[in-house]
This record gives sequence, C-alpha cells and structure tokens, in this order.
Amino acid sequence: MIRYDHPITVYYKDIDQMGIVYYSRYFEYFEEARTEMLSSIGLDYSNIEENGAMLPVIEAHCEYKKGATFSQDLIVKTYIRELPKVKMKFEYKICPAGSDEILLSGYTVHACTNLKGKPIKMPKYIRKILQDNLDNL
Amino acid sequence: MIRYDHPITVYYKDIDQMGIVYYSRYFEYFEEARTEMLSSIGLDYSNIEENGAMLPVIEAHCEYKKGATFSQDLIVKTYIRELPKVKMKFEYKICPAGSDEILLSGYTVHACTNLKGKPIKMPKYIRKILQDNLDNL
Amino acid sequence: MIRYDHPITVYYKDIDQMGIVYYSRYFEYFEEARTEMLSSIGLDYSNIEENGAMLPVIEAHCEYKKGATFSQDLIVKTYIRELPKVKMKFEYKICPAGSDEILLSGYTVHACTNLKGKPIKMPKYIRKILQDNLDNL
Amino acid sequence: MIRYDHPITVYYKDIDQMGIVYYSRYFEYFEEARTEMLSSIGLDYSNIEENGAMLPVIEAHCEYKKGATFSQDLIVKTYIRELPKVKMKFEYKICPAGSDEILLSGYTVHACTNLKGKPIKMPKYIRKILQDNLDNL
Repeated sequence: MIRYDHPITVYYKDIDQMGIVYYSRYFEYFEEARTEMLSSIGLDYSNIEENGAMLPVIEAHCEYKKGATFSQDLIVKTYIRELPKVKMKFEYKICPAGSDEILLSGYTVHACTNLKGKPIKMPKYIRKILQDNLDNL
Repeated sequence: MIRYDHPITVYYKDIDQMGIVYYSRYFEYFEEARTEMLSSIGLDYSNIEENGAMLPVIEAHCEYKKGATFSQDLIVKTYIRELPKVKMKFEYKICPAGSDEILLSGYTVHACTNLKGKPIKMPKYIRKILQDNLDNL
Repeated sequence: MIRYDHPITVYYKDIDQMGIVYYSRYFEYFEEARTEMLSSIGLDYSNIEENGAMLPVIEAHCEYKKGATFSQDLIVKTYIRELPKVKMKFEYKICPAGSDEILLSGYTVHACTNLKGKPIKMPKYIRKILQDNLDNL
Repeated sequence: MIRYDHPITVYYKDIDQMGIVYYSRYFEYFEEARTEMLSSIGLDYSNIEENGAMLPVIEAHCEYKKGATFSQDLIVKTYIRELPKVKMKFEYKICPAGSDEILLSGYTVHACTNLKGKPIKMPKYIRKILQDNLDNL
C-alpha cells in the first residue's frame, strides 16, 4: 500500500450557504492529494503527460459523513492498494488535522490514455515506480 | 418514476487542459438539474429551506465514458425512481443534445436534516408531492 | 454599440457562507455572457480558435453593489462599445430578471493571440463582423 | 505597509483549455492569501465573523501579464498600504516561486458590514491590530 497525507485549509471559496464545503469541491481536494502523492514517489503528472500518457478519471465516488467548515485544517489521506494493470485506483479519507475522525471518504478510478484520449496500457516506468513503492511498505 | 431534462451549455470555465469538462464540474451540472427538477414539480429548494429542512448530499457517484467539450450543448436527464423514506436518490445521465449517447452517468443520495444539520424524517408535504408525481408517470 | 442579454440562474454551487454569490463566480457569468454574445453575431468562440486566434483576458474588473442570492434569476447585460484594434473590451451589468436595479457591473479586456499565445492583430473577419454589428445599432 | 507571502501550487482544477489558470481562479488565490495574511497578524476571519462583522468584496481587479501553468509553484504577495477607515484595500502580485517576474497583479476593496450586510464602521480592534502592524514595518 502506498499512502500519502496532504494538508488542505478550507477557504470561503469552497463553502456554501449551509456553512460547509460544497460537495463537488472535495473532488478538487482529491486531485490535489493524488497529484502530490504521485509527485512524492517521483511521478510528476506533468512528466507523465510529456511522456505521452494521461490518467483521466473514469469513476469518482464520495460518501459524506460530516461537512468541513471555514478555516478548518484537513488532511487528505490517499491510498493506492494495488498495482494497476489497466485502471488505477486511489482511495481517500479526509480527517480534521490531528484527528482520526473521518469526515468523508471516497475514491477515483483512472484509465490510462495517450494524448488523444485513446486507451493504452499503463507505461512500464509508471508500473515500476508503483511496484517499488508498494513493495517497500 | 419522475424524469426531468435540463439543458447545459459547456463554457471555458468548466474545461481543463485535456480539452474536456473537469471531472468535478459535472456534479455542479447535477445540482442544477435536480434543483430544476424539484422546482418543476413545485418543490423550490429555497422554500424547502424556509420550511426548515435541508437535503445535504451524503453520497455522490459518477462514471465517465466520454468527456464533454467546449460549447457542446448537453442534456442532464434526471430521475427519481422511488419514494424516499429517509434518503432521497437522484440518478443522472448526461447526453449531447439531440442524441442518446451517454457521456456519463451518476447519482447523488441526500439525507434530510433540519437547519442545524440534525437528521429528520422527510417532511410530509415533500413526500406527498413526490408520491403524486411518481403515481402520475 | 452591440448589446446582448444573457439569463443566469443562481445555484447552490455559486453561493458562499454569507448567502450570496462568491465574488469570483460572477466572472464565470461574464464569460458565459460574452461567449453567447459573440455567438449571437456569428462569432463562435470555438471557430475563432479553429481559425488560429485566442482572446485571453488581460484585465478584469468588477464592482459589487448587492449580492445575488440562491435561485435568483439574473440578466447579464453585455456591451461592446467600440471596434477593437488590438484589445477588445466587454462591459457587463448584472440585474435581477425584470428589473433595472444593477447588482454589479464590470468589464473584461481581451488581447488577441495566436494559438501559442503570441499577440497578433485582431483578424479581419472578426473586425468586419463587429463593425457590421456596431453600425447596425 | 503590511506584507504577506502566500504559496500556491497550480492544480488541474484551475487550468483551462489554453493550458493556463482560468482568469477567475486567481481571485480564489487572492482570497486564500488575504485570509492567511489577516490570520498572520492575529485576525482570524472566522473570529471577525463571530464578533459580528463581515468584510464583503465591493471591488475586484486583476491585470494578467502571463498565465500560470500546471504544477507551477506561485507566491501571492499581498499588501495593505493604509489604515482603512471605511474600506479596506488589499493589493496582490503573483510571481513564480523564487522569481520576481510578475505574472499578474490586482486588488480587492472590502466594505465592513454587520452579519445582516448593513455597512458599519471598521471595528476598533481590527483598526488597532492593523495600525500596530502598519507602524512596525
């Protein structure tokens, strides 16, 4: 399992009339978190694109238990549990900083395509880096 | 089943570097569509709030088949299939205008709470309106 | 002067904790409005890009008098007052539908560039269409 | 003058089809930066609201010189130059991290209102903190 913790602070831009983060905005937090996770193991997403591959989202899911509020500091805990063959799955839990209370959890599933959007196999160098990191932990 | 078709036009604000709508933005389209659906059967969401109830999202899901592109006209087809007891479920399909090709499909599940966020039973007048509309169709 | 009225409905996605539209979201409304204005005189923005030109924003301004609220129907009144040479200016006023009360007003100024972002002269066919429409009104 | 530097990383969520940050998204960066600036001198915005005051934006302006791109690290340099009487002005410059090149500059002007949106004088404790910090630098 690869795990990465990414901090987020909630600003006014993300909050709705109920005083909590608008439901779609958490998917932006997920994107930040998975981008930083990949970067932390040497997979810069801009390099992946320069090398001719994209990882578009093909499935997104979220279950909301408790809304995050203005100025709250959050941790997005991101997990990869398996070596992807064709599809790559990230799982997420969002907790208040310094707490294990899960405000929400979700996942995204990604295909691998070339720059024209045609499905391709996950490039070997990506699989190798993921394998190395899955083995280590 | 209650069904409602809501038109959307894709603008630059929603499109990412891949030239397609960013994955979280479709959840905003879903919100527009369910708001208009409820309004079409006499349930203005602002009235629901004035009457002391909120319908926060507790689950959101989307499966992406093909990305929508700039200036594309879309139809968000929204469905309620069952009378909610505690939770209310909306299903969505997004197609290009004038086509049955499904670009993506998803759903949202909503709880019913009072204005302080405490879970309550779905108010009777909401259930009645939904029942009447489910019967009619 | 070219003028175009574009209707907007305010949804939850755009509203903040104060119960009014978040300040940056009006710039998205402006984009919708100018895109539809150009389209209404035969200038589809996607065609402009296909013909090798882009119109990136180089200046944006907004003055807020009164916040728009959830489910409010708005009109974005958009104006072009002069034939652009190098820069193109759009002015906007947002009013409640059916009212002349100005909730906010603003403008955007756009350069003309090629697809690599290098400044170019405004293409002749764009100038001609704008001239024809400025003359007519 | 009070100055505060706030780091931002650009993610996919903010980038449009031209490959640069969409023009309205910089106003979200401005909000993050001014919130952190106020917090750094002991003015948590959530406390300001709890004490009965809001600082709604009444004017926003931005001039764009060069677009920020995916994964770029930016610094939002935020300035308050004068003690506000009725209106509070923040100025912003965004530069790449480690560079003095200005990608864009802008400002926001804020009124002070009570929680119902009625204009009030800037509370004394806010003025005092700002005065102390303006004197120090």
